[in-house]
Amino acid sequence: MNEVMNVIRGHRSIRKFKPIPLTGEQIEAIVDAAQMAPSSAHMQPFSIIGVTDPELRKKIAVRSKNPPIEECGYFFIFCADLYRILLTAGPAELETAKSNLSASYFYQTAVLCAALALQNANVAAESMGLGAVMIGGINEALPELDEWLGLPEFVIPLAGFAVGVPNEEPEQKPRLPRSAVFFENRYNPELKAAIDRYDQEIEAYYGSRTSNKQKANWSGKFAAMLSRELPLTWYTDYVRSKGFDRK
Amino acid sequence: MNEVMNVIRGHRSIRKFKPIPLTGEQIEAIVDAAQMAPSSAHMQPFSIIGVTDPELRKKIAVRSKNPPIEECGYFFIFCADLYRILLTAGPAELETAKSNLSASYFYQTAVLCAALALQNANVAAESMGLGAVMIGGINEALPELDEWLGLPEFVIPLAGFAVGVPNEEPEQKPRLPRSAVFFENRYNPELKAAIDRYDQEIEAYYGSRTSNKQKANWSGKFAAMLSRELPLTWYTDYVRSKGFDRK
Repeated sequence: MNEVMNVIRGHRSIRKFKPIPLTGEQIEAIVDAAQMAPSSAHMQPFSIIGVTDPELRKKIAVRSKNPPIEECGYFFIFCADLYRILLTAGPAELETAKSNLSASYFYQTAVLCAALALQNANVAAESMGLGAVMIGGINEALPELDEWLGLPEFVIPLAGFAVGVPNEEPEQKPRLPRSAVFFENRYNPELKAAIDRYDQEIEAYYGSRTSNKQKANWSGKFAAMLSRELPLTWYTDYVRSKGFDRK
Repeated sequence: MNEVMNVIRGHRSIRKFKPIPLTGEQIEAIVDAAQMAPSSAHMQPFSIIGVTDPELRKKIAVRSKNPPIEECGYFFIFCADLYRILLTAGPAELETAKSNLSASYFYQTAVLCAALALQNANVAAESMGLGAVMIGGINEALPELDEWLGLPEFVIPLAGFAVGVPNEEPEQKPRLPRSAVFFENRYNPELKAAIDRYDQEIEAYYGSRTSNKQKANWSGKFAAMLSRELPLTWYTDYVRSKGFDRK
């Protein structure tokens, strides 16, 4: 197995870090890796904010209820960004351009390409012996985060990315059986048996891991989460207020 | 520089392939790599369809106007998938679960996580000496593609991923200047000068590359694209018809 596959197969999210800041070279290597990801029509529709101000880090950590944001060696925020593309439109075409970019197809494209860049950053960080965790919880800090970072229209934060020197060695979480994820020519919707097997496997994992032991399985967590009305329309309102996903 | 950074920095999209199919081991290594990507709350909200039926490959290639779909060594389609999560809901909770999953937050999450998996697949393929290209153009084959692949509700194709033994050695496309993508603490919306410099750089690249030479720059392409009303609402209609992004 080559070194790249070793890094990819060795992935685990790291949430505890030694108090060692990243070097400038490490930060640049991670950003360069993100920029090397492919993107639709070479749009490169993402931006990265490096949060170095300790007070800002603390505010985001508190509002996101997520200590690694404060404790990691460097904290990035990956954003979907169509603002740069919008800048290419002349004044006479600005309203047409905005109307086009408000289509959900462009929202999907920007999110997708930002995530390709984010995963390149993740693999790059891990290849240098660093640990990292992606933090969707920064969305709990919206819309304040939007204001704190000074994001213009058509730029929205998607995920935090906390990187640092690992101070834990967590077990690797089992993945869904390949047969429940990978299909030949046609989707097979008969997935109950594979999910049942997976629930047993992951229940054994949660029950035996060294920290944060719990009695839980995969299905049960989502069944519980989805059984009550979740307050999520504020997110849609925020995304639309930035110009995205209106039509 | 480590081997992983070499692969990431060496990336270029490959669109011409030798007529050599991928081995079973290569296909499994790519799918395994995709499954090792992190995902929000360990949802793993994506699926991968391997298209091996030659007639189906041809139909998708023709409808997408994209020959690599037919000519590559193996053709994957990466999908956003909340159907497996929906299966965890009991009959009494099904409508509440569907209503929750219809929030744009879950659409964003599924697209983002599917893309993390896709980029892991891309890096894995390149690490094995294979070439690959992501193909957003499969969306031109919607909604027929949806029917051909038998996709249930809450599953939508996002991108094709054509992999094979490279039969070309394209130059590497310059990226936006780091200063236009990476910001410290606060977004800097004054990007015109950086984009102007980039336009000069990429115009030189398009004018000097060995194949598909053209006189074009980065801004000009998007300005032209965005200056007329694009027909994109069909995509929104499709996404909503599958249950996504309704609220």
